[in-house]
Amino acid sequence: MPVTDSMFLLVETREHPMHVGGLQLFEKPEGAGPEYLGELRRDLLANTEVRGLFRRRPARPVSTLGYLGWTEDTELDLDYHFRHSALPQPGRVRELLELTSRWHGTLLDRHRPLWEIHLVEGLRDGRFAMYNKVHHALLDGVAALRHLQSILSDDPAVRDCPPPWGSRQPEPARPAHRPRSLLAGARGTLGQFTGLAPAAMKVAGEAFREHRLTLPMQAPRTMFNVPIGGARRFAAQSWPLARVRTVAAAAGVSRNDVVLAMCAGALRDYLIEQRALPDAPLVAMVPVSLRPRREDGAASGNAIGALLCNLATHKPDPAARLATISESMRDGKRLFSELTPLQTLLLSGLNVAALGASPLPGVVTNTRPPFNLVISNVPGPRRQLYWNGARLDGIYPASVLLDGQAVNITLTSNADNLDFGITGCRRSVPHLQRILTHLDTALAELEAATAA
Amino acid sequence: MPVTDSMFLLVETREHPMHVGGLQLFEKPEGAGPEYLGELRRDLLANTEVRGLFRRRPARPVSTLGYLGWTEDTELDLDYHFRHSALPQPGRVRELLELTSRWHGTLLDRHRPLWEIHLVEGLRDGRFAMYNKVHHALLDGVAALRHLQSILSDDPAVRDCPPPWGSRQPEPARPAHRPRSLLAGARGTLGQFTGLAPAAMKVAGEAFREHRLTLPMQAPRTMFNVPIGGARRFAAQSWPLARVRTVAAAAGVSRNDVVLAMCAGALRDYLIEQRALPDAPLVAMVPVSLRPRREDGAASGNAIGALLCNLATHKPDPAARLATISESMRDGKRLFSELTPLQTLLLSGLNVAALGASPLPGVVTNTRPPFNLVISNVPGPRRQLYWNGARLDGIYPASVLLDGQAVNITLTSNADNLDFGITGCRRSVPHLQRILTHLDTALAELEAATAA
Repeated sequence: MPVTDSMFLLVETREHPMHVGGLQLFEKPEGAGPEYLGELRRDLLANTEVRGLFRRRPARPVSTLGYLGWTEDTELDLDYHFRHSALPQPGRVRELLELTSRWHGTLLDRHRPLWEIHLVEGLRDGRFAMYNKVHHALLDGVAALRHLQSILSDDPAVRDCPPPWGSRQPEPARPAHRPRSLLAGARGTLGQFTGLAPAAMKVAGEAFREHRLTLPMQAPRTMFNVPIGGARRFAAQSWPLARVRTVAAAAGVSRNDVVLAMCAGALRDYLIEQRALPDAPLVAMVPVSLRPRREDGAASGNAIGALLCNLATHKPDPAARLATISESMRDGKRLFSELTPLQTLLLSGLNVAALGASPLPGVVTNTRPPFNLVISNVPGPRRQLYWNGARLDGIYPASVLLDGQAVNITLTSNADNLDFGITGCRRSVPHLQRILTHLDTALAELEAATAA
Repeated sequence: MPVTDSMFLLVETREHPMHVGGLQLFEKPEGAGPEYLGELRRDLLANTEVRGLFRRRPARPVSTLGYLGWTEDTELDLDYHFRHSALPQPGRVRELLELTSRWHGTLLDRHRPLWEIHLVEGLRDGRFAMYNKVHHALLDGVAALRHLQSILSDDPAVRDCPPPWGSRQPEPARPAHRPRSLLAGARGTLGQFTGLAPAAMKVAGEAFREHRLTLPMQAPRTMFNVPIGGARRFAAQSWPLARVRTVAAAAGVSRNDVVLAMCAGALRDYLIEQRALPDAPLVAMVPVSLRPRREDGAASGNAIGALLCNLATHKPDPAARLATISESMRDGKRLFSELTPLQTLLLSGLNVAALGASPLPGVVTNTRPPFNLVISNVPGPRRQLYWNGARLDGIYPASVLLDGQAVNITLTSNADNLDFGITGCRRSVPHLQRILTHLDTALAELEAATAA
């Protein structure tokens, strides 16, 4: 069996859970009573049509070696997978994030299909939340987001939205119980790409060690590039897309450049507060969509690449940071476009593979970090969506962390907002929620700098 | 390093968490406001004097082999260990047990000291709960209960109870950072005894296989004696000690015999409901206190033995079941008293060791179960206790399960009550809470049978 097939299960340890998470905030429909959420859960549980993906479990749950593939769980216990929780007083977003942090830091049970969904009540503003986690071997973050959108509706009057384990289309019949290749179940381009990483890593890693290939820039060592523990912190907040759009238009840069400049400003402020700002600028790994250059060959099928972006965190001036970031992103794209598809893949592979390789002993402590953190901007729903009449107010992605990458910023667009999710190692990244405040400051500074 | 030192960490897998748990129910003191629990938590968190036991973590958290011993956690994060949670609507005991089940089925993080405590608000009757879990390598259930009692007070006016990680007496100074033998930290006689089990098991296991030693009775295969998953169900309820005492006096048997007869009746009803009652009677392993017969020799130091008790679940008549149970317990005691101390130890070792050995592959499927479940009756507080004015209403022990032992009943006395905690494998033992109803019926039947 090729190692790629079970990679996400094999590299998982207690300290490196390999699930992706998402936190959603909903406004209850009008007329919802105090037991609304319990009733919603009961109604949904009555729907026992479960998508094939959510019925699969590893064929050999106990052993850490010899995963033959998937098998179908014949005794699926929806009550276990779909849970009902509540926030303690005073029920602020802060309590919600604390609970999400806890859930995001525990491993999924390999005896069962690798997903959990938590409905959360008790927010003092009357809204409710949903936290879902799915193993990366089933779905990557992009595919998980796409699945979420597929069960929602843009019509607030619709009341027959499928449950999160369901689907709008009936699935084609397929033989049950036959173990399946793990990667055959991994949907989405990022999942397919990352599956190739070990092979690419081997070639690229050798090239790197023998100085035949050099990284396009140097990342400093920071407090984020350390071995991590198993516990997590998660913070989340939304900003109006219009504010980012205005800055982008005024500065003549892309919206993603503005987002990266927000992150750069926030990281700079956070590191100054922690007395840990390095002299050299931080380098972010930014997954980007790549158009395939040729139609033939398997390599060109991968539409996700990775750019390294100079975050200019050493510069105190927000406008200067934005300019450097925008230039760095343009350089990054040019770099890819001048390479052959194989070289592109190798370079992407090297960048991404550093993540895949990090649980190996010694990698973190003996090598320089290829980048300081991953910042992903994932396209989300363009229109306002509803779940059986409940308005979707926010979608906040919670990501996988690995040794040497103790913090991750992933954001998604949601109708008129940009929703940021920040995942950190609980031990290495104290006061993670401060980054939210700094993001807010950074956006205001960018607005001030470009308003002239 | 002897294998006994790190046994509880070495045998732990995702499917066999090796922590003991406890659920406590408290009545709030008069005048407590809506944020009482949050304030209690903040007040307690201000107390950063942490008992040595609760500062230790495994010296090598990542590897599953080569545990050298303990090291002191120099960055203890009390906020991580001591958590604040809430129940969803309608906030019944049922919702509390559901949450406890979930917590009891997840592993402790080995990067940190091996304990977690959850304060729970949102019970609709106004009470609050505490769930604590501690790794068996630190404390066994008996020692954990003793520790809990040591921080409480029998005076409702006392307001300076130490936090659960504290202690009333200042600890003797000891060198920090020096790795310590794991078993040196395991307090309590059961912990010490179980440490001896692997050696005893080897000898006894060989004797058993070679038919030189036979088990005193035959346990049937039941739905409880199967390989288990990692998820748990937990159910708990209290009964007045006076009711059990009355039945014991009327029948001329011990209170523990009545408790065992309650369990026998409940298990019989549960298995009938599940269409899984075996023809042969269930056999319980019952830990008992043993007086050492001789003063010299290390073997006699172990004051905990294990009896096998015939639960007479094949008999429909409650009085007949009680009589058989009482006789079986007397026989069991006689059996021990006729053996040499070494034979006693071996027999206890064989019984207990079957638990320790079960995570080894093949043990469950290839051998007959030596007993069907463990039923422990642990002495608890004799007087009504308070925690900073909050009245302790119940103490419900949540136990360790292992392959072949998918259900466990542990009870403790608490002032005027007997508090039962039932732990089950979530997959193998459906509708575990039904056992509570059946316990209630069984006690009523015993009362009716002995009232004449």
